[in-house]
Amino acid sequence: MARIEKDFLGEKEIADNSYYGIQSMRAAENFKITGISIHPKLVHAIGMVKVAAATSNMKLGYLNREKGKAIIEAAKEVQKGKFDSEIIVDAIQGGAGTSINMNINEVIANRALEILDDTKGNYERVHPNTDVNMAQSTNDVVPTAIRIATIEQLNSLLSALSLLSIRFREKEVEFDGIIKMGRTHLQDAIPIRLGQEFGAYRKVIERNINRIKNVMNELKEVNLGATAIGTSLNAEPKYIELVIKELRKVTGLGLKSIKDFIDGTQNTDIIVEVSGRLKTLASSLSKVANDLRLLSSGPRTGLNEINLPAVQPGSSIMPGKVNPVMAEVVNQVSFQVMGNDQTITLASEAGQLELNVMGPVMAFNLLQSTDILTNASELFAERCIKGITVNRERCEELLHHSIGIITAINPHIGYDKASQIAKKALKEDRSVKEVALEEGVLSEEEASNILDPIEMTEPGIAGKESLKKEA
Amino acid sequence: MARIEKDFLGEKEIADNSYYGIQSMRAAENFKITGISIHPKLVHAIGMVKVAAATSNMKLGYLNREKGKAIIEAAKEVQKGKFDSEIIVDAIQGGAGTSINMNINEVIANRALEILDDTKGNYERVHPNTDVNMAQSTNDVVPTAIRIATIEQLNSLLSALSLLSIRFREKEVEFDGIIKMGRTHLQDAIPIRLGQEFGAYRKVIERNINRIKNVMNELKEVNLGATAIGTSLNAEPKYIELVIKELRKVTGLGLKSIKDFIDGTQNTDIIVEVSGRLKTLASSLSKVANDLRLLSSGPRTGLNEINLPAVQPGSSIMPGKVNPVMAEVVNQVSFQVMGNDQTITLASEAGQLELNVMGPVMAFNLLQSTDILTNASELFAERCIKGITVNRERCEELLHHSIGIITAINPHIGYDKASQIAKKALKEDRSVKEVALEEGVLSEEEASNILDPIEMTEPGIAGKESLKKEA
Amino acid sequence: MARIEKDFLGEKEIADNSYYGIQSMRAAENFKITGISIHPKLVHAIGMVKVAAATSNMKLGYLNREKGKAIIEAAKEVQKGKFDSEIIVDAIQGGAGTSINMNINEVIANRALEILDDTKGNYERVHPNTDVNMAQSTNDVVPTAIRIATIEQLNSLLSALSLLSIRFREKEVEFDGIIKMGRTHLQDAIPIRLGQEFGAYRKVIERNINRIKNVMNELKEVNLGATAIGTSLNAEPKYIELVIKELRKVTGLGLKSIKDFIDGTQNTDIIVEVSGRLKTLASSLSKVANDLRLLSSGPRTGLNEINLPAVQPGSSIMPGKVNPVMAEVVNQVSFQVMGNDQTITLASEAGQLELNVMGPVMAFNLLQSTDILTNASELFAERCIKGITVNRERCEELLHHSIGIITAINPHIGYDKASQIAKKALKEDRSVKEVALEEGVLSEEEASNILDPIEMTEPGIAGKESLKKEA
Amino acid sequence: MARIEKDFLGEKEIADNSYYGIQSMRAAENFKITGISIHPKLVHAIGMVKVAAATSNMKLGYLNREKGKAIIEAAKEVQKGKFDSEIIVDAIQGGAGTSINMNINEVIANRALEILDDTKGNYERVHPNTDVNMAQSTNDVVPTAIRIATIEQLNSLLSALSLLSIRFREKEVEFDGIIKMGRTHLQDAIPIRLGQEFGAYRKVIERNINRIKNVMNELKEVNLGATAIGTSLNAEPKYIELVIKELRKVTGLGLKSIKDFIDGTQNTDIIVEVSGRLKTLASSLSKVANDLRLLSSGPRTGLNEINLPAVQPGSSIMPGKVNPVMAEVVNQVSFQVMGNDQTITLASEAGQLELNVMGPVMAFNLLQSTDILTNASELFAERCIKGITVNRERCEELLHHSIGIITAINPHIGYDKASQIAKKALKEDRSVKEVALEEGVLSEEEASNILDPIEMTEPGIAGKESLKKEA
Repeated sequence: MARIEKDFLGEKEIADNSYYGIQSMRAAENFKITGISIHPKLVHAIGMVKVAAATSNMKLGYLNREKGKAIIEAAKEVQKGKFDSEIIVDAIQGGAGTSINMNINEVIANRALEILDDTKGNYERVHPNTDVNMAQSTNDVVPTAIRIATIEQLNSLLSALSLLSIRFREKEVEFDGIIKMGRTHLQDAIPIRLGQEFGAYRKVIERNINRIKNVMNELKEVNLGATAIGTSLNAEPKYIELVIKELRKVTGLGLKSIKDFIDGTQNTDIIVEVSGRLKTLASSLSKVANDLRLLSSGPRTGLNEINLPAVQPGSSIMPGKVNPVMAEVVNQVSFQVMGNDQTITLASEAGQLELNVMGPVMAFNLLQSTDILTNASELFAERCIKGITVNRERCEELLHHSIGIITAINPHIGYDKASQIAKKALKEDRSVKEVALEEGVLSEEEASNILDPIEMTEPGIAGKESLKKEA
Repeated sequence: MARIEKDFLGEKEIADNSYYGIQSMRAAENFKITGISIHPKLVHAIGMVKVAAATSNMKLGYLNREKGKAIIEAAKEVQKGKFDSEIIVDAIQGGAGTSINMNINEVIANRALEILDDTKGNYERVHPNTDVNMAQSTNDVVPTAIRIATIEQLNSLLSALSLLSIRFREKEVEFDGIIKMGRTHLQDAIPIRLGQEFGAYRKVIERNINRIKNVMNELKEVNLGATAIGTSLNAEPKYIELVIKELRKVTGLGLKSIKDFIDGTQNTDIIVEVSGRLKTLASSLSKVANDLRLLSSGPRTGLNEINLPAVQPGSSIMPGKVNPVMAEVVNQVSFQVMGNDQTITLASEAGQLELNVMGPVMAFNLLQSTDILTNASELFAERCIKGITVNRERCEELLHHSIGIITAINPHIGYDKASQIAKKALKEDRSVKEVALEEGVLSEEEASNILDPIEMTEPGIAGKESLKKEA
Repeated sequence: MARIEKDFLGEKEIADNSYYGIQSMRAAENFKITGISIHPKLVHAIGMVKVAAATSNMKLGYLNREKGKAIIEAAKEVQKGKFDSEIIVDAIQGGAGTSINMNINEVIANRALEILDDTKGNYERVHPNTDVNMAQSTNDVVPTAIRIATIEQLNSLLSALSLLSIRFREKEVEFDGIIKMGRTHLQDAIPIRLGQEFGAYRKVIERNINRIKNVMNELKEVNLGATAIGTSLNAEPKYIELVIKELRKVTGLGLKSIKDFIDGTQNTDIIVEVSGRLKTLASSLSKVANDLRLLSSGPRTGLNEINLPAVQPGSSIMPGKVNPVMAEVVNQVSFQVMGNDQTITLASEAGQLELNVMGPVMAFNLLQSTDILTNASELFAERCIKGITVNRERCEELLHHSIGIITAINPHIGYDKASQIAKKALKEDRSVKEVALEEGVLSEEEASNILDPIEMTEPGIAGKESLKKEA
Repeated sequence: MARIEKDFLGEKEIADNSYYGIQSMRAAENFKITGISIHPKLVHAIGMVKVAAATSNMKLGYLNREKGKAIIEAAKEVQKGKFDSEIIVDAIQGGAGTSINMNINEVIANRALEILDDTKGNYERVHPNTDVNMAQSTNDVVPTAIRIATIEQLNSLLSALSLLSIRFREKEVEFDGIIKMGRTHLQDAIPIRLGQEFGAYRKVIERNINRIKNVMNELKEVNLGATAIGTSLNAEPKYIELVIKELRKVTGLGLKSIKDFIDGTQNTDIIVEVSGRLKTLASSLSKVANDLRLLSSGPRTGLNEINLPAVQPGSSIMPGKVNPVMAEVVNQVSFQVMGNDQTITLASEAGQLELNVMGPVMAFNLLQSTDILTNASELFAERCIKGITVNRERCEELLHHSIGIITAINPHIGYDKASQIAKKALKEDRSVKEVALEEGVLSEEEASNILDPIEMTEPGIAGKESLKKEA
């Protein structure tokens, strides 16, 4: 059972039970690209925009109450995800989002008709463009919705990162008394406490949290009311004032109108900026994941200072093997985010004149990046960091073998003499202290004081309680 | 109704009707990352590898015939896509593909048990590792399957590109007689024929086709038989010899063993190389799409030399507007492919020692790139290039107004004098010919010969039939 | 005439008049990579660090006054650029900056010896490590200096961007009364004022200015005092407190110690973040440059709405041709910055454990990005934007031909009817108004009001003075 | 002392002794961007093109012999590098290379005038455009020269890579008898020979060598004769035929004309393709460098299986420290090449219609990438790989402790039982063999055979001479 719909290019049969219409259908045929649907958060956000617009239009008398109420009800259902399966256009699509906007306009029009006990497709009564899209354009609706969806996604990401930072903090405290060798260039350097290492992981996550928080305000500036190119053609000043208030209500996100609608319609620098910060985060996360994989390498032929929790067997062939899979997936997610950032940058640079038509691919990548960073951060926190344990003896053993503590002697005997001792200790496989004493450059007492590894991990650390306890 | 399965980390309840087992379950829980499934082509390719391995093991007597036949049958079903919905692990996963390999091992084991009228989970009889994964490792199975899936994807891509090249060729012929102005730096240059422009689009596509074809041979070198790190531990020489023959049979792709299994197991440069060639293709496609959008810009305020077919209304607010959406989606796909290439490069660089554990994210991106390039090329060919028409009068009008034809006078009067004439013609809004005659640098006859635009489009073109006809 | 210097790896001849020493020499031989020197700003910044460190060490009595004063004097000369030619190590070098640090340590030591009337190379008296590098490590000196140099570079960039924004503002005002067609998807959209377009260019630049300003505070947190891995080994608490004060004095940049030295020594996320913001800026600049190239395309076969100033002949073969070279170079600089950002991201992700050893390549790219963005912004402002003129008649002509103004009728007659009129006008090459009147959907008076392009460019614009004047 | 030169934009004073002229001067002022000169290889290649063009023009009678000979002589001097310092335009410049072409045209014209005992600047006699640039355009000269320079650079790179591959081969042979543990996921896997690891490094380099060799043929197709947009305007058929022959003679590189000049003038996909292959190489090199840094990590707290030669002291503060700086610089170079590839891809995608105007930034990056890859490969070969030594005892010690050899038991007792043994051995810190015997799953003899690590490194290895000798 099908109805016939038409637009200025011709007509098409649409299955009777479908809420989408002819334009959705055309777009679905034109853009069989990824097979991946529009991100539901974006669909719901467009629903919110439609609620705000219809409410404003109704309040201002542009839409009659009957039609207005039906449209609002239908839009609220879109917002709640009730029509996700009616959104049939591909995540990557030509046309700056016109197809996703029209898909939702058609769904809302047909659902509104249904609410009004009318027949789907009877657009004379409720029209997807004239009514549902009233005083709007794809070019203000979709960018506004992308910002709404992004804010929500970033909020989830911030929660996940906050959890991750808590887990690092717990380990920072737990491992504060573990003295071990620090490494630079993967070569033995000087002593450090394992807790300090986890503290550094926490700090870099927290700094990334702050950067993401700080970009939020920019994201709250939306161009709803700009219509096609920012000149607000077909949007009355009263509507422009009202619709942002309504949108604030619907979303609860503290949105405001961007000062210059022309700017807000053609420029997508905020998307690049947000993605850029996610890329910074990704590079930080990947570094941390790499470190944990290094520190837990082994168990017999690696550094083996810490153990990551075993979450699944690691090999289809090697029995008993366990791999750092949660850290590895963090690396992979980070690489994906970096690649996505590239795509977004290219798409943003391709904006031309009054519009950037590459919005869909930007939204696709930005929402994927936020999704996977959120998921990976949470899983990393709960399935990896939380369960990390230390191999205390191993840390001590490596510490006591190390040459790097020679550095502490440096100020006392000079770099050149110290270098000779280091070289000799290494060559003869002896300890620095032993050689230093033999060479007569330090007394036994001096050596004990100067070469005490705990002292080396922090200036004026002597009195620190946690260490006394542990040492 | 559930069964209990266990591994060396503990046990888990598995729904009775599930073919996957405990390791799939663990992985599905550990890697809730993208929500996107493993590419079906990769699943089917692993199915092929399993068929080849089980056949070889059975023929060599390592698997008894009863068990062997059941495994082979089950693996063939995986190959045919019968169990796609039982593959529950995420596209991005830690562990170098162990989870996807084990997911399939478990599905095959349980399906084989079913074929043998046994109970799912009774791994004493058919074991996912010991039997299904016999003489294999994730580290040879998955890389081999990635190559198989990639070859198949590239074959589809080559068909799509070939179609695209045919469509360009058709337009090249159709538009051979259209003389128009060429532009460099977006500034008026000298005459060219529209067919020549389409010819250049064809050539660059064909060159990209060749580059992709040329990388195929490299892709055919697989490391099946390498097992865990390329030393072939647990794979007998006879098996190694046989399994590649069986795999050739199953796939029909002319695969062969890579010479050095160690190399073939740890290095993923071929993935970067293939992706790099896709990136080159993407940058070519994007340039062509940009050109078509420029040439069809308008209709009233742009270049408007050609018309792209109208495939959908272009605006939710601007009536009658039609946009170059098929070209735009080609741009977006190109940006996605460039970003994916970045991800792949990062992932490949992250290989360490005997293995690159970032295989899943590489496969995810490479298979997506090939998918979307194939789809976009086909749609571009059929929904855009095929229907392009020319605005002949517009081309002529622009041609006759142009200053650039002054270039042809250059050799006759020198660059400096020619520059003066050009400047004057532009300033006074007159034609080059008029000014040249006025300045007395050319006779009327010389001017007619030298300034004939057709002559300018190709050396010795005078006798060309198509042009006579058209001109 | 040469002196012999030695280190723990052996000895080398050094030309007598050279201030650099054996370690510089080794590094210069090891890293013949780019042939490009260390950025002078970075050299001078290390000079500043050395001044601060030596002053602190002298004040605290670790360095005797004679030696201290000589070192301080030498370091000040490095800061002032007096020894730039003695910095012989390559911009890309292994070793996290040890070679550049040692090159400067050696230059200072030898210059100090000279000041003390001693012989170059007599490191017993003034030692590059023990004395010049006292209480320091490459791992706090170089990261601190990179931040200092970056802040200075960003200050220059901000000035250049500010100039650019002023130039855009001037054009925004100058062109406020020019009504023209806006374009989306390169297709005719609806009217806009040229001044509005330049206003949008200004806004996006200003937003980028703000983002760069906002990252400055983060850059001011330096890890001087952290020494090798952030544990401050060999740096006394008193020194740590004093050295940052001295550094604030020397630099005048309001620097402060980063809270966690461990974090500050191993993490380079701030470099990625700064580069990411430069990348956002680059993508914005490139979009603006593209727009200007589009709008000025022609003169006869392009859009030709504006003219960029002619700064050089555009072709070696086409007389009188002028190209938008200043905009083109902005594009190229933007692409370079985007590529540099990639390099920086990769280098930052490669940090391991207590240190990121890829500092040199990060500094090289970041300082190049800031340099070329500064230069390009300034040249773009002064040699391009400043001299832009408008082709008013051309703008008007295109405006009056356009179909897009149909959009304004939309609310009055509905999208479907409006689409029909648009289609008809386009097909019959007539004006929208004409067809609308013919179709009887509007009265003459309505048409005049509704289709007034000025009205379409801004809600409630009617009374705007600048427009009245211009119109 | 200065002369006055003029062009159609006005006039300028040029220092009398300068060979460059007004257009060079304008460009030098317009593009103060990087401060880096045009790559000398590109300058010399343009010299070659000029030699070929002038020779052809003279032979065909378009240039009189006197003028022709002077131009040829001057062009040969450019080719030989005699005028490098007169090339004053910046590496990144707007205008598709017009400025570099004109800089060289002016230098040649003025040098030819000097040869003819005439005054510099007397362009009536020898004109930079009319004479030196005769039958040429920037748009065929510069792309042709970029290909020539690239081929030469790639030849150098191939030599360096070949040396690198030889050095790996030497170590492959030298270390063939060293049995050690292989690692996957940085976790203990199964035995491998160190020589096998170096063999894999060699193989991946050789594969990259082949890919670069294979792209050479494409690079040999040049568009000289295409002039401005590929239509060969102002180039006679006879000239087109002759000039490529002359160019082949001058360069000795086997160049040929690209089939379609239009294509060859607007498309720069070959540059992206070459850069893409360099990126693949870079990702391979970086992986190898990472591995060597891992394997040599220590000396006391790392894997410490091999030693990289000490090439310089590693720390300004830690005495006796030696870092893997040659490997680190390879990483940094690789990151630079990957970033450069990004820039090139962006620049190539930005081509429009008849020309890609972003040539200068592409050439800058491609020539830098080839330079630094060549330098880094050579230095890596000679200062790192060549001197690598092994810590045999360390390899053995790690091997004997390892759990991974359990894998070999797998086929004999099944994966599940083997997993239990592995787990027990790890937990109780005992050897696999010991536990296997205790559990009674193998006899002493079986254990000795099955668990012999040498056997595990290659199928059928038992008789291998090198191993017998070593073992």
